[in-house]
Amino acid sequence: MSSCPPDEVRRNRGSEPRSGHVRMVDVTEKPVVYREAVAEGFLHLRPETLERILRGEVRKGDVITVSKVAAILAAKQTPQLIPLCHPIPITHVETEIVPDREKSGVFVRVRVRTRAQTGCEMEALVACATALLTVWDMVKEYEKDEKGQYPDTWVEYIRVVEKVKVEG
Amino acid sequence: MSSCPPDEVRRNRGSEPRSGHVRMVDVTEKPVVYREAVAEGFLHLRPETLERILRGEVRKGDVITVSKVAAILAAKQTPQLIPLCHPIPITHVETEIVPDREKSGVFVRVRVRTRAQTGCEMEALVACATALLTVWDMVKEYEKDEKGQYPDTWVEYIRVVEKVKVEG
Amino acid sequence: MSSCPPDEVRRNRGSEPRSGHVRMVDVTEKPVVYREAVAEGFLHLRPETLERILRGEVRKGDVITVSKVAAILAAKQTPQLIPLCHPIPITHVETEIVPDREKSGVFVRVRVRTRAQTGCEMEALVACATALLTVWDMVKEYEKDEKGQYPDTWVEYIRVVEKVKVEG
Amino acid sequence: MSSCPPDEVRRNRGSEPRSGHVRMVDVTEKPVVYREAVAEGFLHLRPETLERILRGEVRKGDVITVSKVAAILAAKQTPQLIPLCHPIPITHVETEIVPDREKSGVFVRVRVRTRAQTGCEMEALVACATALLTVWDMVKEYEKDEKGQYPDTWVEYIRVVEKVKVEG
Amino acid sequence: MSSCPPDEVRRNRGSEPRSGHVRMVDVTEKPVVYREAVAEGFLHLRPETLERILRGEVRKGDVITVSKVAAILAAKQTPQLIPLCHPIPITHVETEIVPDREKSGVFVRVRVRTRAQTGCEMEALVACATALLTVWDMVKEYEKDEKGQYPDTWVEYIRVVEKVKVEG
Amino acid sequence: MSSCPPDEVRRNRGSEPRSGHVRMVDVTEKPVVYREAVAEGFLHLRPETLERILRGEVRKGDVITVSKVAAILAAKQTPQLIPLCHPIPITHVETEIVPDREKSGVFVRVRVRTRAQTGCEMEALVACATALLTVWDMVKEYEKDEKGQYPDTWVEYIRVVEKVKVEG
Repeated sequence: MSSCPPDEVRRNRGSEPRSGHVRMVDVTEKPVVYREAVAEGFLHLRPETLERILRGEVRKGDVITVSKVAAILAAKQTPQLIPLCHPIPITHVETEIVPDREKSGVFVRVRVRTRAQTGCEMEALVACATALLTVWDMVKEYEKDEKGQYPDTWVEYIRVVEKVKVEG
Repeated sequence: MSSCPPDEVRRNRGSEPRSGHVRMVDVTEKPVVYREAVAEGFLHLRPETLERILRGEVRKGDVITVSKVAAILAAKQTPQLIPLCHPIPITHVETEIVPDREKSGVFVRVRVRTRAQTGCEMEALVACATALLTVWDMVKEYEKDEKGQYPDTWVEYIRVVEKVKVEG
Repeated sequence: MSSCPPDEVRRNRGSEPRSGHVRMVDVTEKPVVYREAVAEGFLHLRPETLERILRGEVRKGDVITVSKVAAILAAKQTPQLIPLCHPIPITHVETEIVPDREKSGVFVRVRVRTRAQTGCEMEALVACATALLTVWDMVKEYEKDEKGQYPDTWVEYIRVVEKVKVEG
Repeated sequence: MSSCPPDEVRRNRGSEPRSGHVRMVDVTEKPVVYREAVAEGFLHLRPETLERILRGEVRKGDVITVSKVAAILAAKQTPQLIPLCHPIPITHVETEIVPDREKSGVFVRVRVRTRAQTGCEMEALVACATALLTVWDMVKEYEKDEKGQYPDTWVEYIRVVEKVKVEG
Repeated sequence: MSSCPPDEVRRNRGSEPRSGHVRMVDVTEKPVVYREAVAEGFLHLRPETLERILRGEVRKGDVITVSKVAAILAAKQTPQLIPLCHPIPITHVETEIVPDREKSGVFVRVRVRTRAQTGCEMEALVACATALLTVWDMVKEYEKDEKGQYPDTWVEYIRVVEKVKVEG
Repeated sequence: MSSCPPDEVRRNRGSEPRSGHVRMVDVTEKPVVYREAVAEGFLHLRPETLERILRGEVRKGDVITVSKVAAILAAKQTPQLIPLCHPIPITHVETEIVPDREKSGVFVRVRVRTRAQTGCEMEALVACATALLTVWDMVKEYEKDEKGQYPDTWVEYIRVVEKVKVEG
């Protein structure tokens, strides 16, 4: 037996300081209900880059498929990326990636479904952002100017466009 | 308020191109049922390497235990490795690693159990493949020839030998 | 020995189909040079939510610190999120999160440094997006309307504002 | 069809050796019940370091908040860290970090809640240990002596102080 | 100061038992050299499934692209899957997935490059196995018989077909 | 082109608030040197449990091997667990797990080696803590009292017992 009993250890504990406040919401008592969330975002690209995507002439490969895979994997990784998110059993991830010539860029739309005690909008948002950045990564070489900067590339409007919660 | 309202953003969106098709199966409405899957595989090794494993004389350590641990951890990592897999609450992983002198190698057998909306054969397969490759990694030095190649080492027949689904 | 020699296996292999093109850039021969990248983004929030952040009255805790931690961890996770990114040895991540009353939201700015064979703009972008979404996650309850939707919340302009590469 | 039918493969399989025993508990038939666990630990630090934490003068930043975030993320990562742990749907993680001048160090207390087939004490323990080590990491520079050693820094008494299981 | 000095703790420590031997190779003193490894494997499938892959009529999507992405991500995840692998800075992953009508299945070939203190064959093998299992996952529904079993599906011959190490 | 130019976005940005301070140390300019760190810790257990470990009669399996594997994997996971840690190329992890009848428990000792710009004591500490908690997890059933509590189980003295840095 140790000569330094563990019960001793807890004596005289002070009170917690006011700073350093971090609180995960307690969802233990919330019912498991059907949840759905749809997030959308847009990545602005040079018109020439968009044409490359549309013609399948991007050197790194199939931009749309790779970005969809990245979105689905990222949705499942959400509780490790967003610190206060609860792990939820995702039952569906649906991704849509739509090149838009008029706006010169690609739309990403991700729908996530689950039956859980908390919503899945963060999963949809993480997936959407990851898809947008994966597109960017795949076309980097066509977007850089001669100084290696990205004057024409930006993510614009990542939003939750729909959130559903069906009791019972 | 931004001068560029987000509602504006969604105008004129084109239709999705036919390429880039990736679809996670929607299991939201499927019932949670008992599932079990057993995967098996074989790693061919040099007879001398097999004897080392059997005598516990592998320099990197206890091949069988390390490979079983790798299998269990890999089973739990499946939704991050196989892109379209759903996260499922694994309730059991059972591993068996059997050296076989006649065939000169080791069999790996992994059984996974869960109560889930979708099957667990991918979890069993991922665990089985990871165990086989962990065995390989641990005996690498005995399998390499003088040119650093592996003429006698290969994984053979990874299969699902049993899949159970019990309704109700 | 197996009766089915592995050499046999490779006979008659057809040529790869044109679809399914995915190519990680080969950086093996590129020199290790100093790299830096700065990404910026903005999250639009309701003025009341911004005031809560500024007064430290967000129920989930210290929004700015939690989001910075999320950004740093996400930067290190980039090669698992963006499929074609190479693993690089990040040597610095610097985050700045600035509430802006006039624009009603928070700016996030992330600087990443490394000595590597490839740039670190994806690391900066992933960190920036993750910080923005972590802020969103922490103030969700103040941004939802009575129907659980987010009419006033969106991410706007994630960009690479600076990219440095110093040879030698 | 292969000339080497897979059924052939399983012939003559020997029995498993006695070594290499690893067994994940099978919880498939256990009921889902309310579970709670509280873990505590203590990190001894130099009095000067403790004062720095209390005054908010640690160069690496807000020690308490960062450590709480680390604890919450680590709790969710438990099944990847502790090999035989089952994945469980954590519904709450509550962290308390309390500087103690008398004992010269910080207490960490983590409460985890879930409804699951198995307990969550490993999640609480992993979160507690991670918070303690994150505090250490953040104050490293004040704890090292002139030879770069840590004569005054140690983790002391990580324990499970409460474990609750409510049937029905 | 604690009444139970840490120096006390180490007294009387016994010697380590002979069991439980696990040894990561120490590569600290090995030079960083160019390394390359190529792994190959084959997945046997029903002829009808292969035709579906070739015609792009798999319901889950673009089998070849998704499997290549899975391979690349898995290569980077190797040190977490194979316990005694060292983390190495992968500089290239090249994947080839070739449907073969004569053998009724798909070949996977993965080449990995790095400059490191240790070889990259485990990275190539993990990537190859993951690609093969991802193909399987994507065509599961066409391979199952009426009892939900996989009589015609198996992975066959995962091998290292080339390993290069260039000193200097 | 968007009507809302990104340059516009950065106008009027306020200054960062004083709270929310998180700073990863910038090691970009630090030289790569040889580093080594040794961490030690102790887990107190019931004498009967210790005897079970020594006789190899723990139902969950080979406690020492499983815990060593957990330690090695955790060392490699450190930058994801300790937020401000830099990723470093670990070149060696050596673990020792020693049952001690006199003190009634097991010692864990982990040595980590690397050539890096920053030390590896956090890697050694994370590995040590993970091994200690893995031992605990494997003998849980023998340590619980009739109320499911752990009156005799605690981690004690996790320390860095040696830290080496060799310039040049």
